[in-house]
Amino acid sequence: MPDPIDELKDVLAPIEDLKHAAEVLSWDQETFMPDGGAEARARQIATLRTTAHERFVTDKLGALLDRAADALDGADAEDAALIHVTRRDYTRARKIPASLVSALSEACSRAQVAWQKARAADDFDAFAPHLQRLVELNVEKAEAIGYEGEPYDALLDEYEPGMTTADVASVFDPLRADLVPIVDALADQPLPPDDFMRHGFDPDAQQAFGEQIITDFGYDFERGRQDRSAHPFTTSFSIDDVRLTTRFDEHFLPSGLFSTLHEAGHGLYEQGIDPALERTPLAEGTSLGMHESQSRLWENLVGRSRPFWSHYLPALRDAFPAAFDGVSLDAFYRAINRVEPSLIRVEADEVTYNLHIMLRFELERGLVQGTVSVDDLPALWRAKMDEYLGVVPETDAEGVLQDVHWSMGAIGYFPTYALGNLMSVQLFDQLRTALPDLDAQIADGDFGALLGWLREHIHRYGRRHQAPDLLERVTGDALQAAPWLRYIRDKYSALYDVSLP
Amino acid sequence: MPDPIDELKDVLAPIEDLKHAAEVLSWDQETFMPDGGAEARARQIATLRTTAHERFVTDKLGALLDRAADALDGADAEDAALIHVTRRDYTRARKIPASLVSALSEACSRAQVAWQKARAADDFDAFAPHLQRLVELNVEKAEAIGYEGEPYDALLDEYEPGMTTADVASVFDPLRADLVPIVDALADQPLPPDDFMRHGFDPDAQQAFGEQIITDFGYDFERGRQDRSAHPFTTSFSIDDVRLTTRFDEHFLPSGLFSTLHEAGHGLYEQGIDPALERTPLAEGTSLGMHESQSRLWENLVGRSRPFWSHYLPALRDAFPAAFDGVSLDAFYRAINRVEPSLIRVEADEVTYNLHIMLRFELERGLVQGTVSVDDLPALWRAKMDEYLGVVPETDAEGVLQDVHWSMGAIGYFPTYALGNLMSVQLFDQLRTALPDLDAQIADGDFGALLGWLREHIHRYGRRHQAPDLLERVTGDALQAAPWLRYIRDKYSALYDVSLP
Repeated sequence: MPDPIDELKDVLAPIEDLKHAAEVLSWDQETFMPDGGAEARARQIATLRTTAHERFVTDKLGALLDRAADALDGADAEDAALIHVTRRDYTRARKIPASLVSALSEACSRAQVAWQKARAADDFDAFAPHLQRLVELNVEKAEAIGYEGEPYDALLDEYEPGMTTADVASVFDPLRADLVPIVDALADQPLPPDDFMRHGFDPDAQQAFGEQIITDFGYDFERGRQDRSAHPFTTSFSIDDVRLTTRFDEHFLPSGLFSTLHEAGHGLYEQGIDPALERTPLAEGTSLGMHESQSRLWENLVGRSRPFWSHYLPALRDAFPAAFDGVSLDAFYRAINRVEPSLIRVEADEVTYNLHIMLRFELERGLVQGTVSVDDLPALWRAKMDEYLGVVPETDAEGVLQDVHWSMGAIGYFPTYALGNLMSVQLFDQLRTALPDLDAQIADGDFGALLGWLREHIHRYGRRHQAPDLLERVTGDALQAAPWLRYIRDKYSALYDVSLP
Repeated sequence: MPDPIDELKDVLAPIEDLKHAAEVLSWDQETFMPDGGAEARARQIATLRTTAHERFVTDKLGALLDRAADALDGADAEDAALIHVTRRDYTRARKIPASLVSALSEACSRAQVAWQKARAADDFDAFAPHLQRLVELNVEKAEAIGYEGEPYDALLDEYEPGMTTADVASVFDPLRADLVPIVDALADQPLPPDDFMRHGFDPDAQQAFGEQIITDFGYDFERGRQDRSAHPFTTSFSIDDVRLTTRFDEHFLPSGLFSTLHEAGHGLYEQGIDPALERTPLAEGTSLGMHESQSRLWENLVGRSRPFWSHYLPALRDAFPAAFDGVSLDAFYRAINRVEPSLIRVEADEVTYNLHIMLRFELERGLVQGTVSVDDLPALWRAKMDEYLGVVPETDAEGVLQDVHWSMGAIGYFPTYALGNLMSVQLFDQLRTALPDLDAQIADGDFGALLGWLREHIHRYGRRHQAPDLLERVTGDALQAAPWLRYIRDKYSALYDVSLP
């Protein structure tokens, strides 16, 4: 008799292969695929995902999970986690009827085309019926999955397992109350100059500079690579093949540079997973929020810090002397930390970013609850932008139509961006305790201890622990906004030489 | 009741998706994949191929093929071909036991590692037991498939359906008898100088020049792209996404240039298949020989012709003035058509190339028949090289260990290279009749009529006709060596100003 746990792993491994193959095809689609390949590629990815799904939701796998659970040696925490996580995925996947999966997939395909056109034409009405349909299907999905509190719980759970809508709201609401006056106070300050960021920067030279930094971080180019795509992303084909993408703006250096550091943070997480988890459902980051905590930690807490640039500014001057000769560390540090309420989420600074997220969370939660109607979105969007950030988009293209997520049917995804920001500071506080001379290490361009700590406490576990449990294990606390607020207040009151509320 | 032919197409389409997905993963493996990805990638490709195979060899598909055949409207030649070709693939696939497939796959994995080491160390004995095992497994496979004449038939049939070993031998044997004295006579001639080919050539400039030419050929970069890999190849992910790879030698221009034209010939074939065949087993070139006829036609009959270079030499001079200023068309034409018996197949000129192939065909046929033993290969290789080409390798690395094919378990593949050479001239003769001013068109860089003819008579059919039938339909003849010999005699007696036997 084969060990049922081994048998389970043998059944799951090729399913993981199929899912990773779909990731390879998606990566190629975004990086190298010629336009002509689009139609066939969409079908191929759909076939891979469907095949993986069909192999996963069989009765046989359910029975095998039962046998594996019975055979479990209580001492093996890794196998226990494998069974627990797989059971969770399995139960969830079985609850969603195939007809709903295909209705959602079809509606998303149509919605994405409609969204692209609607955004280009600034025509929300053209997108509204598609969004309406996606909301209805998501509600149907939430009902199929089930929830304790409200239907949004079931959707959020896909991206941030272990968190409820109420958990999120209980953190976001007081945070917003504290944050709006801070943003308000900073918006009154004169903007630090950043004209030196707007020279011409050769994209290949930008890429070389960024790759040097992320190599120093510990991103392993023997087990990954960086390519260019319209929207930066990170994807994993195995623990030993984790790919980053980025894009470069020839006339604005921070765009490509910080996107490289950000994606490298995601990449370091995926490259740091315990090789023993390879080819199992545990071999990925545990939640989108935890993933974002890693990308934001490297991008902001490391990459927008003064010690970091005390090390790298000389190299940047060597790479781009025309732009940076004579630019002081202080001027550079201020330029990369400009706070300016703005319309577009992906271009937002670290202070205002969370408000963009809260706005989206509130609207999509309302859509799913039925307290917000699709037709009201544009007006609500403008009202909340005004209330939270003091700026109002003149067009829906710069407002409610700016993000791709809803057109992809992804409702419940947005909050994870802000959760990641909050967690990143909770983790960094812990890191500072563990590594008292962290700033000095960063100022030496030495990230070995930092990465080692993240690997030891976060990365290696993959999905073995849900994000809230992992955060609690590492910090002793549940999700908190206070550390992040303290970090923001400390950093920006010093940087702007202003007292913040 | 659904139409069984539609039902058949619905079953086959996702199987094609899985096979194409495996091609995407292989392409990435050879072009962009970091070293670390190798192990996971091998497993992922194996899973995709196994999944496609398992979905193909079901009893259900057999029954569906029967029902589709019964439902066939005699007037629909395309559906008839689909059923015929699928039945043929199905019958073949069902005959090979799963245990043999996995034994072969495992033996190949080991043999390839062993071959790379053995070639590097010039140690045939280290590779011999692996080759012995692969020969035995191939014989087992041939016996499982069945054959009329000899076991090699069953292996050849995978690469060149419709051809038998006896067919190949009956063309090769007299060809060799005629060709050896021609090579002998040319080997006595002084070599045309080609020092201007050995300047430094920037790889990016080489790529730009080659891509301009193949764009002129009609290769569609909206439905394909060219990347770099250690060994040039062409692969198709759909009719609208056909990728080429090449490699550039900075110090020898013809290497990358003619490999680009060659692969473009393969690519034009795949891009020219009737879109109605998409996502069916008919949507690829009909045989490796027919494929090679297309690549060699563009590489040699077009790309190494005088009219072609009367058009492109000025552009080449503009691209690389240091190398080609003052080089006459005549000197250039002679340089790209040097005939020189040499040790390495992939570097052989068009006159000697077929002798390299015949040598391999004779040896592998003997291995499968049992008349040649693995241990005798190195000595037999040297003896035949001496007999056919008058050169003898000093090492096995430059002899019997030079090619990757046997280590991949591909026995029966080699002859298709020479079959392609022969067919290319038969087709080109037909083309000259259809397009009397073909040379003038080529001299104008105008390939529209040429490509149009190939699309009309060859490309669009995909696998609808087997290669021998297609050749007969187009030329009125079976495979013939005489046209190729005539072409070689005419071209090289003029070029070397010598009378050839």
